[in-house]
Amino acid sequence: MSDTDAQAFIAPATAEMVLSAICFDANGLVPAIAQQHDTGEVLMLAWMNEDAVRETLSTGRVCYFSRSRNRLWRKGETSGQTQHLKDFRVDCDGDTVLLLVDQNGVACHTGRHNCFFRAPRDGVLAEIAAPVVSPEDLYRHG
Amino acid sequence: MSDTDAQAFIAPATAEMVLSAICFDANGLVPAIAQQHDTGEVLMLAWMNEDAVRETLSTGRVCYFSRSRNRLWRKGETSGQTQHLKDFRVDCDGDTVLLLVDQNGVACHTGRHNCFFRAPRDGVLAEIAAPVVSPEDLYRHG
Repeated sequence: MSDTDAQAFIAPATAEMVLSAICFDANGLVPAIAQQHDTGEVLMLAWMNEDAVRETLSTGRVCYFSRSRNRLWRKGETSGQTQHLKDFRVDCDGDTVLLLVDQNGVACHTGRHNCFFRAPRDGVLAEIAAPVVSPEDLYRHG
Repeated sequence: MSDTDAQAFIAPATAEMVLSAICFDANGLVPAIAQQHDTGEVLMLAWMNEDAVRETLSTGRVCYFSRSRNRLWRKGETSGQTQHLKDFRVDCDGDTVLLLVDQNGVACHTGRHNCFFRAPRDGVLAEIAAPVVSPEDLYRHG
């Protein structure tokens, strides 16, 4: 095993096995669900391309592919709200991955802990969680 | 409120508010994460179109859109492994939904309780969960 292998979160040869099990879509992307590893809270869904999967497995720090910015998106690169990989799961047919992570701070750009804060309540689509931190505070160093 | 409204799991007017908050993609679909409501287990990811969302909210029984069969897919229609809706969450930008469900039996067509049973272990992509029921038993009435 080379020095590079020894330092990788997941060894490169294993990462390639993971990659070969993933069926990327016509745009080269796969949906990735991020779940807090210890509480089970579903934090967010984002997308990964092959490079994002490879970087995430190599570094142990979650990297997505931003469809709006059309580039790799190292979660927390502007907000500081990083995600650290605990486990990486591939589903039965390889077209979704589940990331078990340790979320530093909040996952949602609105300052909420997770992105799924709207639900039907009392006849309307209500906000069922409040921001923990203001978006201004999240991105003032961005 | 009409009789139809009274019998709906989520009232039609509320369902329309939910629908208007969802940003369906170019194919008219949105990814839907199914999570077991009480344990937090992420069961699967599938896709919904507008009709699937409307039917799910109306009946309380989860209905997806099958991309391979190009039609509505009432989860469990052949296997009996139905999903009953407990809550329906829309994410911050409306491009993912999270279904809190009560899973009857197993979620995965392989007979496993959830679809995310492959993970890197000891240098390979390993199966970390075994089938609870055989696929033959799941689909013999299908």
